[in-house]
Amino acid sequence: MKYSQLHTKTNKTGKEYDSVNATYLINGGFIDQTMAGVYTFLPLGLRVLRKIEQIVRQEMDTIGVEVMMPTLSPKSLWEQTGRLDIIDVLMKTAGANHRSLSKSTQEYIINCTHEEVVTPIAKQFNPSYRDFPFAYYQIQSKFRNEARAKSGLLRGREFRMKDLYSFHVSEQDLEDYYQQSKEVYRRVFKRLGLGSDTYVVRASGGDFTDNYSHEFQTRCESGEDEVFYAAQSEVAFNKEIAPSQAPEFDQSGEQPAERREVEGEGIVGAEALAKHLDIPIEKTTKTILFEADDGRLIAAAVRGEYDINEEKLRKVAGCSGLRLASAERVKQVTGAEVGYAGIIGLPDEVAVYLDDSLAGRVNFESGANRTNYHIINVNFGRDLPEPSRFYDIKMALAGDYFPETSEQYEVFRAAEVGNIFPLYTKFSDAFGYTFTDQQGKQQPVYMGSYGIGTSRVMGVLVEKFHDEHGIIWPEQVAPFKVQLVSLAGGESLAEWLHDQLQANQVEVLWDDRQLGAGEKLADADLIGCPIRLVTSAKNGNQVELKRRDEAEAQLLAHHRVCAAVS
Amino acid sequence: MKYSQLHTKTNKTGKEYDSVNATYLINGGFIDQTMAGVYTFLPLGLRVLRKIEQIVRQEMDTIGVEVMMPTLSPKSLWEQTGRLDIIDVLMKTAGANHRSLSKSTQEYIINCTHEEVVTPIAKQFNPSYRDFPFAYYQIQSKFRNEARAKSGLLRGREFRMKDLYSFHVSEQDLEDYYQQSKEVYRRVFKRLGLGSDTYVVRASGGDFTDNYSHEFQTRCESGEDEVFYAAQSEVAFNKEIAPSQAPEFDQSGEQPAERREVEGEGIVGAEALAKHLDIPIEKTTKTILFEADDGRLIAAAVRGEYDINEEKLRKVAGCSGLRLASAERVKQVTGAEVGYAGIIGLPDEVAVYLDDSLAGRVNFESGANRTNYHIINVNFGRDLPEPSRFYDIKMALAGDYFPETSEQYEVFRAAEVGNIFPLYTKFSDAFGYTFTDQQGKQQPVYMGSYGIGTSRVMGVLVEKFHDEHGIIWPEQVAPFKVQLVSLAGGESLAEWLHDQLQANQVEVLWDDRQLGAGEKLADADLIGCPIRLVTSAKNGNQVELKRRDEAEAQLLAHHRVCAAVS
Repeated sequence: MKYSQLHTKTNKTGKEYDSVNATYLINGGFIDQTMAGVYTFLPLGLRVLRKIEQIVRQEMDTIGVEVMMPTLSPKSLWEQTGRLDIIDVLMKTAGANHRSLSKSTQEYIINCTHEEVVTPIAKQFNPSYRDFPFAYYQIQSKFRNEARAKSGLLRGREFRMKDLYSFHVSEQDLEDYYQQSKEVYRRVFKRLGLGSDTYVVRASGGDFTDNYSHEFQTRCESGEDEVFYAAQSEVAFNKEIAPSQAPEFDQSGEQPAERREVEGEGIVGAEALAKHLDIPIEKTTKTILFEADDGRLIAAAVRGEYDINEEKLRKVAGCSGLRLASAERVKQVTGAEVGYAGIIGLPDEVAVYLDDSLAGRVNFESGANRTNYHIINVNFGRDLPEPSRFYDIKMALAGDYFPETSEQYEVFRAAEVGNIFPLYTKFSDAFGYTFTDQQGKQQPVYMGSYGIGTSRVMGVLVEKFHDEHGIIWPEQVAPFKVQLVSLAGGESLAEWLHDQLQANQVEVLWDDRQLGAGEKLADADLIGCPIRLVTSAKNGNQVELKRRDEAEAQLLAHHRVCAAVS
Repeated sequence: MKYSQLHTKTNKTGKEYDSVNATYLINGGFIDQTMAGVYTFLPLGLRVLRKIEQIVRQEMDTIGVEVMMPTLSPKSLWEQTGRLDIIDVLMKTAGANHRSLSKSTQEYIINCTHEEVVTPIAKQFNPSYRDFPFAYYQIQSKFRNEARAKSGLLRGREFRMKDLYSFHVSEQDLEDYYQQSKEVYRRVFKRLGLGSDTYVVRASGGDFTDNYSHEFQTRCESGEDEVFYAAQSEVAFNKEIAPSQAPEFDQSGEQPAERREVEGEGIVGAEALAKHLDIPIEKTTKTILFEADDGRLIAAAVRGEYDINEEKLRKVAGCSGLRLASAERVKQVTGAEVGYAGIIGLPDEVAVYLDDSLAGRVNFESGANRTNYHIINVNFGRDLPEPSRFYDIKMALAGDYFPETSEQYEVFRAAEVGNIFPLYTKFSDAFGYTFTDQQGKQQPVYMGSYGIGTSRVMGVLVEKFHDEHGIIWPEQVAPFKVQLVSLAGGESLAEWLHDQLQANQVEVLWDDRQLGAGEKLADADLIGCPIRLVTSAKNGNQVELKRRDEAEAQLLAHHRVCAAVS
């Protein structure tokens, strides 16, 4: 294909966007931003997206059958699962003007996921145990009402996604398929060139199970997630659920000192407090009061440098939901304004959960439960009873250890390129989807869902594979295998090569523009096809071949080029 | 592929929907209705849709380059073209619940067409005369706020569409490309199997031009449009703009009679009036008063059996818009309630336009401009001046003639499968898109838009190609070329054939279900693959081959089947 037939152009201004992928994809003419988080895939970008999606499709075909569900669905389906009011990125349609509204005032849901659509379809067609297991999948655009879209293709309001839904006669069969899907996903990311940097990461299984879901996270500085990886154990966790053991705070030899109250008016945050009290932050204690859904008042405390992980606390406390206690409730219970709660002297009605980072400390600080005051030199067993139990209720921090093996986590940023999620019977229950077993009895259907963000993968690929000149596409997803650059005097050889390569099924982009060498070579680097060929008067009948990921070029006789790049 | 791997099923209840395509596509397991006008494409249906879209893609690649524009766009783009308040099927997004609205209250347009998105892209990349002509196209889902979706895939709220946008340096270049696109469209519909029944039909060019746009209309009883075809001239018109000459009303020998007023209180419609007055409907006159955008009051009159074509009237009257005159205005001008306006005795301020169907009549009726009264035996030249000019301002009716050649129209219902539309400078003006010509001057860019409804094509194919047993797919769009039916005892031969056919690149659907012959053969007819193969104990090593569109089957030795179907 000729560059002039793309009818898009590279942007020479070198404008920088908020991420590498946005900068190179926009400046390279792969995508165009229609608005924040919403892009047009231009001819070059569409070619890359298609290749990514074709790899995903080929692998999904081994475990499911492709369908195409609609973007719109009736609200009634979402009422049935209770998610109409829950999903915080859900969008609906409405007539855009008076004329449209006079035709119809009906509103529809714009699907951000398809459990509500796929479950009734499966129920309709597959009522018998003989029909199981099976899975439907699709690759299409999805929509989320994001407050802030950012980082190019990494977080969009409109984005491309593969979603697959599996159906099973038992939890065991779901589990087997779930494990199989992990292997298929590993193959997908390997084929996409992301295999070595993509981790299977445990994440929350949602509020209906204590089990994990799993995210496929590609190590990537622009990623939104933080991964805690225990390398020896080959186990990775999303920060949001990572079990953690705090680094030990060495106080060997320190003797209990005299406890006393210290004034600390208006000091916000553990760091400021530690400075004010002139103690290490590890001696401070963060105590937060929550109200549980069951009405209980809960005090949770962590070492000063940590935050409470509400999800962990919720599970430890055995309640279905938590919210911060109101300022009035805090005052009523502690006798103090918010900010001075501590673990000494709380009334019995408060259930206290202490994080294990609090264990073994000498002379630590606690809020005084008195406005403007803190207590220092507190010690368990003297100033309050030795706790019978500590819990892990902290949000993990870099430097923490994996409790099971006490190995220190490797912590890195990552972009979630896929996730797999055991849904159990949540959606089949909502739609009354049971199957008839061999004894003729109705049994619950188990489900799983499995996503891959195909446009995000495109962004992640650029984040991973680039240098200061532009993108370095892995061959399997490159828009073209070869970018053929004809400089002055090299036009007719280029035309011959272009035809030769096409006849040999080699995908080639011929930069046929009448521009200077500098500009054309810079564009080839920016666009990033794996192989660059240059013809010119200087090279005569020879062709310069340079791989995008190598520094050195070589000169080849023109009749040897086809064989060299095929 | 095995039928059991589709995980969809035919519907044996034989439930009938509002159209043949809905009935066969839903019962055959090609599509599933999520809600009125919104469908899931199941594995069989997706295969058909993909083949249709691939044919369209191949042809579009000869005249444009493929992109993928987003579904969402900012309102500002639509404000810029003035279409935000105009398009009566336009939809927007909104947060679907409180949580979503608390993240963002921003609303976006859900694109039903993409001029507003594509023009800024073209402007960005192609500023010079050297860049022209060019065209971008895409194939994707579109959305319309239809009051009433119906007829299966023929009118949807969400549907698939190919849309192409072309850009030119001159009206002549647009015209050349426009003619070329007609030929490409003809090839597309020929390849889709609709060539012989698809007409290029002239339609309104919109309110910014007197030129036509063109619709590709496939003759089809379930279609929503009415086509007026002048066969000898090979010219077709959409009813909405068809020029028409009324059939002559023979009054030879009838002498002018005495004019008189007749009471006709509360008679509604020309037919009732003719009956009441005991005269042929051709003697009645329908007079309607309009207010033009420029403030003029206009009376338009047609022979009783016709309606006013407001679009024709608007052009004849040379105004940009028309609306029915209010009841008060009618009373003020005619002195009578609505329903009794006539062409006699209107005040001079009213501009009167008479349709040519009124010419040459003797003793006709007219409203009396007096509540409850009509005048009969009116004659031009006696009761009111002989008009200096008649116009064609009627909505054409079956039986009418093409004025240019006086040949009688063939009139038929049709479904619009494509349209091509010269946009001239409407959108480039709105976005300030000019190009720099060879002299360095800024010149207006000319544009065209070109659509094909790919999911509607799928529905039309079923409407055209079916019998009482099911669908008869043309081979090029069939989900599979061969449906292989294994009856009792034919399983192992079927398996061998299935593998042989797949090895020979023949697309085959093997109905491997343990069901009776009647059910399996009926399903094969319903699904409608071009070739049916049957293996059974009865046939032994022979295979029964029957084409879906032929009545007779033949028996073939098993080793000859591959060659026979390849």
